[in-house]
Amino acid sequence: MKKLILCVMICLFGVGFSLAQTLTSPDGNLVMDFHLSADKTPVYSLKYKGKDVIKESKMGFQIRPSFDFSKNFRIVETKEDASDTTWNPVWGQNSVIRDNHKELFVALEQEGTGWLLNIRFRLFDDGLGFRYEFPVQKELRHFTINEEVTEFQLAGDHKAFWIPADYDTNEFQITTSKLSEVPQLIDKARDEALACKSPSPNLAVQTPLMLKSDDGLYINIHEAALVNYPAMHLNLDAQTFLMSSHLTPDKNGTKGYIQTGSTSPWRTIIVSDDARNILASNLIVNLNEPCKLEDTSWIKPTKYVGVWWEYFTGGGSTWAYTDTQDIVIGKTDYTKLKPNGHHGANTAHVKEYIDFAAKNGFDAVLVEGWNEGWEDNYAYAKEFIYSFTKAYPDFDVKELQRYAASKGVKIIMHHETTSSVADYERQMHDAFRFMKENGYDAVKTGYVGPIIPRSEHHDGQWMVNHYNRVAETAAQYHIMVNSHEAVRPTGMYRTYPNWIAQESARGTEFESFNGIRPDHQTILPFTRLMGGPMDYTPGIFEGDLSVYGSNKAKLGTTLVKQLALYVTMYSPLQMAADLYQNYEKYPDAFQFIKDVAVDWDNTYILEAEPGDYITIARKAKGKNEWYIGGITDENSREAVIDLSFLSTGKKYQATIYADGKTADWRTNPKEYVISTKKVTNKTKLKQRLAPSGGVAVSIKEL
Amino acid sequence: MKKLILCVMICLFGVGFSLAQTLTSPDGNLVMDFHLSADKTPVYSLKYKGKDVIKESKMGFQIRPSFDFSKNFRIVETKEDASDTTWNPVWGQNSVIRDNHKELFVALEQEGTGWLLNIRFRLFDDGLGFRYEFPVQKELRHFTINEEVTEFQLAGDHKAFWIPADYDTNEFQITTSKLSEVPQLIDKARDEALACKSPSPNLAVQTPLMLKSDDGLYINIHEAALVNYPAMHLNLDAQTFLMSSHLTPDKNGTKGYIQTGSTSPWRTIIVSDDARNILASNLIVNLNEPCKLEDTSWIKPTKYVGVWWEYFTGGGSTWAYTDTQDIVIGKTDYTKLKPNGHHGANTAHVKEYIDFAAKNGFDAVLVEGWNEGWEDNYAYAKEFIYSFTKAYPDFDVKELQRYAASKGVKIIMHHETTSSVADYERQMHDAFRFMKENGYDAVKTGYVGPIIPRSEHHDGQWMVNHYNRVAETAAQYHIMVNSHEAVRPTGMYRTYPNWIAQESARGTEFESFNGIRPDHQTILPFTRLMGGPMDYTPGIFEGDLSVYGSNKAKLGTTLVKQLALYVTMYSPLQMAADLYQNYEKYPDAFQFIKDVAVDWDNTYILEAEPGDYITIARKAKGKNEWYIGGITDENSREAVIDLSFLSTGKKYQATIYADGKTADWRTNPKEYVISTKKVTNKTKLKQRLAPSGGVAVSIKEL
Repeated sequence: MKKLILCVMICLFGVGFSLAQTLTSPDGNLVMDFHLSADKTPVYSLKYKGKDVIKESKMGFQIRPSFDFSKNFRIVETKEDASDTTWNPVWGQNSVIRDNHKELFVALEQEGTGWLLNIRFRLFDDGLGFRYEFPVQKELRHFTINEEVTEFQLAGDHKAFWIPADYDTNEFQITTSKLSEVPQLIDKARDEALACKSPSPNLAVQTPLMLKSDDGLYINIHEAALVNYPAMHLNLDAQTFLMSSHLTPDKNGTKGYIQTGSTSPWRTIIVSDDARNILASNLIVNLNEPCKLEDTSWIKPTKYVGVWWEYFTGGGSTWAYTDTQDIVIGKTDYTKLKPNGHHGANTAHVKEYIDFAAKNGFDAVLVEGWNEGWEDNYAYAKEFIYSFTKAYPDFDVKELQRYAASKGVKIIMHHETTSSVADYERQMHDAFRFMKENGYDAVKTGYVGPIIPRSEHHDGQWMVNHYNRVAETAAQYHIMVNSHEAVRPTGMYRTYPNWIAQESARGTEFESFNGIRPDHQTILPFTRLMGGPMDYTPGIFEGDLSVYGSNKAKLGTTLVKQLALYVTMYSPLQMAADLYQNYEKYPDAFQFIKDVAVDWDNTYILEAEPGDYITIARKAKGKNEWYIGGITDENSREAVIDLSFLSTGKKYQATIYADGKTADWRTNPKEYVISTKKVTNKTKLKQRLAPSGGVAVSIKEL
Repeated sequence: MKKLILCVMICLFGVGFSLAQTLTSPDGNLVMDFHLSADKTPVYSLKYKGKDVIKESKMGFQIRPSFDFSKNFRIVETKEDASDTTWNPVWGQNSVIRDNHKELFVALEQEGTGWLLNIRFRLFDDGLGFRYEFPVQKELRHFTINEEVTEFQLAGDHKAFWIPADYDTNEFQITTSKLSEVPQLIDKARDEALACKSPSPNLAVQTPLMLKSDDGLYINIHEAALVNYPAMHLNLDAQTFLMSSHLTPDKNGTKGYIQTGSTSPWRTIIVSDDARNILASNLIVNLNEPCKLEDTSWIKPTKYVGVWWEYFTGGGSTWAYTDTQDIVIGKTDYTKLKPNGHHGANTAHVKEYIDFAAKNGFDAVLVEGWNEGWEDNYAYAKEFIYSFTKAYPDFDVKELQRYAASKGVKIIMHHETTSSVADYERQMHDAFRFMKENGYDAVKTGYVGPIIPRSEHHDGQWMVNHYNRVAETAAQYHIMVNSHEAVRPTGMYRTYPNWIAQESARGTEFESFNGIRPDHQTILPFTRLMGGPMDYTPGIFEGDLSVYGSNKAKLGTTLVKQLALYVTMYSPLQMAADLYQNYEKYPDAFQFIKDVAVDWDNTYILEAEPGDYITIARKAKGKNEWYIGGITDENSREAVIDLSFLSTGKKYQATIYADGKTADWRTNPKEYVISTKKVTNKTKLKQRLAPSGGVAVSIKEL
């Protein structure tokens, strides 16, 4: 009898710790549950309208040397809170963003060690965010992470839009498959010629991961506010559909160096039964810290052209000034070397682009290949690859600055590091000072190849800190940053709005390499773009690269789809990437690129299905102008464009850029028809989109 | 018969390539032989007065991915040359240095690959230097080194003065043993509590390696001009006495990233049948590049005191300002933290040292613990450990600068990095600017703990480049550098004479840890000091640390030996390391430290036997003053000090600081006798040195 009483007491005691905490979203559709499991592991689950989104899933850490920091916890304290506020981004898809969430804060103490771990949940109408918080405490100050054990137990064999987990690149083609099919497809998915690959040793995929359940739920898993922490990939058990955190290690195998008094990034699960709500979500940016810059007046959304695509066309233009490859930065005297005669970034040629930009209303001209070092920029072999303050002899910095200023055009700086990052950090302040002295206010950074320091990966903690440091340091100089080959974004542009765009996915350059599939741009907004804007560099009109030389690559879209991308692929930084001569051949189509805005008051997701199609309308910031883009995958379709977002009782003129009747990305990509039409808020435009085609519409009030 | 002819032709052909090239030293004592072996591997050997120093030994490389770059060579060209010049160092043991050598240059081409490798030999009267040169060539631009295969085939089981090879530290006790005994002794030698150890996986020792053969040859193996290359350790075959290069790898196992158009460091073999010639050798510094600084007027040999030893005594003084350890540099507001009450680098205490320095003619005061970050400086755990521009609240930079300047004293800056080196490089320019703004012109750098970037070791190529970069960058700011825990020096102070000293060995701080053996200082000049001056920080008068608290450590020398070290341990930077109060107790003995010079016109090695004793006399630069130091190991001895270096016919007054009659480092270290004596160049002083004792003499012209 005594034994029974003891048992009952223990059970009650156990129950006391496992009493579930539930959190319900403001609209009541989402319910999150948190409790301690039998072995006192923190677990959570999430339902949407009664359907399982995440079934019971563990939380915690394995830390070094070999310690389980994921069980034997007791709940010290829980706190609930709610917040409903709005804020105004410096730039964005909407000029007002609402942040309406419920919060649960759980303070845990591990029995035995006495170590403290807090978890903070925020539940929005469109999803859940949670993060770990490592409070300052007496017995634990520094530790290293072997693995974060956060689980995402999915409820079924969802359709997934995935790229393989890789510590150094995110430029893969996106594969669409059932989760159960990932094992048989991942080797093929990994088998791409990319500049630097370090595939995860096990079955894992990258975030943002887009999922669709058989019962119609759209689920997106990613993270927000990646600061002083490695990027998260997701392990997959393709039988049980258990996914779990797979942090990017350094090359010594450590996944994070943590000092207490800090937090993890937020883990985000966005969910809806309407795919449009995924694209409309502000959950990730809402989980980032507010803007840290006092003055943001110098940050300007930018439309630009540049000396860039010519390096990819196969037409012969080169970043390098000379064919001599035995270059030592600081010692080689370029003025004594023979020019190769086809260096792209020469003063006269850049002036042509400045003239074109000025004539057509572009803000800026990007110039790649302006600085010393390109001849011998083989990554990882040497550390001192480029000078970021020394121009090639045929690139006249002062004269170009004078000329561009006289035309009201900015030149965008280019800092390709070839991933010699420690050296870039050495040169960074001098490089930024050089920029300001010469009128530059934006830089495109690049991280091609494996990283030096040689212990590091692109997506590891050290590099995450580097990218953030570049954004923060650039802000001190009033410089905007567009980082290429960096870790994929996590909404940090809220905190540093000068970090105006990133690449971090397969962009237009791949049209000249191994190609981009027609469904690619219908998936990117559901994956890569969830974390922030992409410098996708659309606008290729001449898609047959064989016209330039030996490159046989062909564009994976129609010309009109290229126009539509300016709306469907949101970015405050948009390039018209083609050679300017190609725009001069199609001035009527080019008009849409000239007109389209790069900053917005409102965004309307009209139609969306990942992998199939996207139609988006946006109102230009501060103007009564609307721009609409609709795109489709390899299948033609009819887009239905409901203009009910326009004001009642007003009349508008729509200019419609449509695929021609026989347009097809494979056989006839450049056929287009431009028409105008009077429309109102009652109009529903029905537009046929060619295979990998699109539609672009501009609307102005009459 | 045809076969025979063919065979003869091949043999002749073979002989054609293996014709030995010999080089003879200017005095004829050294003969170097070079030829290609049967498998066309470059081999060299070295004899001294007919005795084998280095028997036939291979040269070349193993390079990545897996390629043998050490055989199948043919000789393209050989060139002989000779040079006999003198030059004047900015500071040194002698004001004029002679560089008299014969040179053999060999250009090799590897059959099959067509790759080119050159070898340059320089033979001096006191030894051989050779280096590899990687010429610019068409088929080879970048490669990585798996191993340099340079061999040193010793002729017998020599006595060796060695420390175990380790990629991160050189602070071991020195072991004296036969080479054949190294295997049984190396585990014990490695078993020391040092801040960061990465022992070589195999049997290997560090350079400079001092050897003595049974037939009386003294041989020293080291390297010169370590630039963009990892430091070399020496593998040992304890049966055959074959030693070979063991370059320090990075943590990925790569031993060097090479771009053609560069050279290896020089491999140096200094040899004599008189140990004094080893100490007198200028071979290593002669193999370094001439001074690269146009203006060296700001470089000043320096004698200093400092807020330093009190951190080691156990008396309670701390580098840290507060006991709060949850520090985040840039966020923590130190003015809001409670001072711990025993912070060493406080304004009032530093002023005491400034007063003491001014009163006693010292040039400078070193202050450690002046800057934010010491509370939480656990190495490798975090990257942002210190600010190098933000002082603790109780260290008034401006007031101390004013006060020191008013007294004619400099303050020496301290930059302990705790090996967070990438971050030090980020801060370096700001840190140097901060120094110049506040009147500092010298910095002591420190590299305690494992390196961040976490791919790197203290002695690897990346860190070698870092140390050199610090010296070069500091020179741009007219800052002198004294680096601690850096790779051991290789004569680079010739090129950057602002790199005024290094630690890079077991220095006086160890008197407060696990001790320093009495023979240590009789070996260091034959090992560590071969590459350049050491900031050994002698001058400890109070050797019984139990007087301060719980530290039971006792000094391993007599007080007089501490005086003698100012002469026997050459450095243009010399500290009087003890607490100033201890000097005030022994003003007559302290007089020698006040008097002794730190720069010299001439040096006379009077007596020397590694591990046993050293007696050196030096003439102060530009003065008719001579200072003599004699030291012994654990055995007492009689030093014979032949003053024949003095001018004929002149009279001098000698002040002799001698161990007292019953002085003994273990029982009675502080007993000393000071006497004066008239001397001439005919005088031979005979002085008894106590066990681990010494003698110090100052001589002035009457």
